[in-house]
Amino acid sequence: MDAPPAGLAFDEAITHEELQLAARNHGMPLEGLRYDVTPLGMHYLLIHFDIPDADASTWTVDVGGRVRAPLVLTLDDLRARPAVTVAVTMECAGNGRARLTPRPISQPWLHEAVGTAEWTGTPLRPVLEEADLQDDAVEIVFRGADHGTQGDEEQDYERSLTVEDAMREEVLLAWAVNGHPLPPQHGAPLRLVVPGWYGMTSVKWLTGITAVAEPFDGYQMRAYRLRQTEDEPGVPVTRMQPRALMVPPGFPDFMTRSRIVEAGTVALTGRAWSGWAPIALVEVSVDAGRTWSQAELAPRPPHAWTAWSFAWEATPGERELLVRAADRAGNAQPLEQPWNHHGLANNMPQRIAVTVR
Amino acid sequence: MDAPPAGLAFDEAITHEELQLAARNHGMPLEGLRYDVTPLGMHYLLIHFDIPDADASTWTVDVGGRVRAPLVLTLDDLRARPAVTVAVTMECAGNGRARLTPRPISQPWLHEAVGTAEWTGTPLRPVLEEADLQDDAVEIVFRGADHGTQGDEEQDYERSLTVEDAMREEVLLAWAVNGHPLPPQHGAPLRLVVPGWYGMTSVKWLTGITAVAEPFDGYQMRAYRLRQTEDEPGVPVTRMQPRALMVPPGFPDFMTRSRIVEAGTVALTGRAWSGWAPIALVEVSVDAGRTWSQAELAPRPPHAWTAWSFAWEATPGERELLVRAADRAGNAQPLEQPWNHHGLANNMPQRIAVTVR
Repeated sequence: MDAPPAGLAFDEAITHEELQLAARNHGMPLEGLRYDVTPLGMHYLLIHFDIPDADASTWTVDVGGRVRAPLVLTLDDLRARPAVTVAVTMECAGNGRARLTPRPISQPWLHEAVGTAEWTGTPLRPVLEEADLQDDAVEIVFRGADHGTQGDEEQDYERSLTVEDAMREEVLLAWAVNGHPLPPQHGAPLRLVVPGWYGMTSVKWLTGITAVAEPFDGYQMRAYRLRQTEDEPGVPVTRMQPRALMVPPGFPDFMTRSRIVEAGTVALTGRAWSGWAPIALVEVSVDAGRTWSQAELAPRPPHAWTAWSFAWEATPGERELLVRAADRAGNAQPLEQPWNHHGLANNMPQRIAVTVR
Repeated sequence: MDAPPAGLAFDEAITHEELQLAARNHGMPLEGLRYDVTPLGMHYLLIHFDIPDADASTWTVDVGGRVRAPLVLTLDDLRARPAVTVAVTMECAGNGRARLTPRPISQPWLHEAVGTAEWTGTPLRPVLEEADLQDDAVEIVFRGADHGTQGDEEQDYERSLTVEDAMREEVLLAWAVNGHPLPPQHGAPLRLVVPGWYGMTSVKWLTGITAVAEPFDGYQMRAYRLRQTEDEPGVPVTRMQPRALMVPPGFPDFMTRSRIVEAGTVALTGRAWSGWAPIALVEVSVDAGRTWSQAELAPRPPHAWTAWSFAWEATPGERELLVRAADRAGNAQPLEQPWNHHGLANNMPQRIAVTVR
């Protein structure tokens, strides 16, 4: 086999650099799928640079650029505005990356880079209306306080949305999560929350909201694109692809995480979500993908995951369980890996090996 | 080079099984050293099996075995007893494992398996006194609800303390952390907290407290021992060895985590702790370990880490920073790796590569 291109690995072994990221950034242990709202500390985290040392009492966010009435808002200014609380499922765009072959080298997620939180904040739209966008504004750039280098470019973390997407009513400037002030690692004291989109869009430690007259082409806009080679332009990654995950049944082995399940009726449960449309269908396979059965779906909240359940008549032997979802917009999880150079949006189904005894 | 013995790896590459653990269990990003008390969700977590699905309203802990007055205590029973809150630094006994050569294969921690929390609970001693230990009781076994297999043994997670250690006044039955009810991943609704000891001792999801007349020899007692080969008896791992860690200065590169620092006076800061005695000395090296300078120490709380600081006159170039601690009992961090078969208690000093510009 030829040597893989830079930034890719063909073998299963994980590099020291990937481990450094895995030791900092954490997923949600999959038994966390049992909670409607992920307990604080179990929600996934992906932090590009360092967690900034932020002081909420002096924090401000500048609203400027192509606006007629620039604003400088303190936390108190924002908290004085109408507040809403929304349950939002958020997933890292890199979820599933370490299951790809060859493996793109970055944060090595398997399945677990997801969580659902109740974010409290104020809608962005009235803030933008008050700042009064100029007619040539096409995008809004959100700047975070986290600073570092990536791809040899020194940067504050920055991402943009089109004016149309930024104006959607569910987009929030959030200062609390699950009823608590934001903890440092979730963007304290203020972050953007963009329901339905992969997490890179929900900029943490928000310091700037800038209207621009040209599409923003910063590093993080170029990085989060689906491409087959490093030099093609690719397609932007935006909303979450559909995915279903299962609470691993039975109990685990510490090291291998393989499972032992008692024979009989086993209540398989989990969650499914899509950023494009409500979940239409969840299917379970208990025979390694040869046959599929439809799961029961609970009510579908607008921006949070949908609970599913399936009663499995488990008989002794080695089994492989899979689950897959499709949404009402016609998106479905592919059985083959949707490979791309940066390992983004890999939603091929979870597989769980179990021994039924 | 010969093939390494089972459970060891000579090369740097991390296995898929180690990654599965690293994606579930997480360390404290080292910038978290800036907080006296680690914010909820940043404290390290090591969970052997699954996080149990616990119901606080029906939870009980059985106090039995070699006692004259067995007890069954609910959460309300415990909360009606005198409550104390103690700041405790807790570290995983496997911290530093993935820096050993050859590398023992288990949860692959680098430096970050630590945190300091304010635990609220009731002292264990009066509970044991009320249960009235029989004269032949030599140890107390603590059983958790997390269940799985490890080393081919199916088990509830169990660890013991000698009666003398269990009777120490700082040992708590805790139901809250940082002022919040325990979250599921930290042992909800009830856990043991044993200040000064590595974290495996502080059994989570506590269901049983059993006095026994023989030293307990369960799997987790045999696993947490310092030994050079798998078949020698080894020495039990108990209290935390001294360690100092530094907040990585400057800002990072996303992938390599290497640092860029501006030339001039740089305030290096961090924390140091030991489970054996107060910290006596923290030393910093800014020249890869050739020379060492003494850091300033803040007041030393009894069970939590000690803050240290050092003003570094940084001049342009490539630098390697180290920090090491010693305690008043004469324990000090070794410059060479303290290798053992399970990769426990590796407290060789942190090294941080920085480019001063």
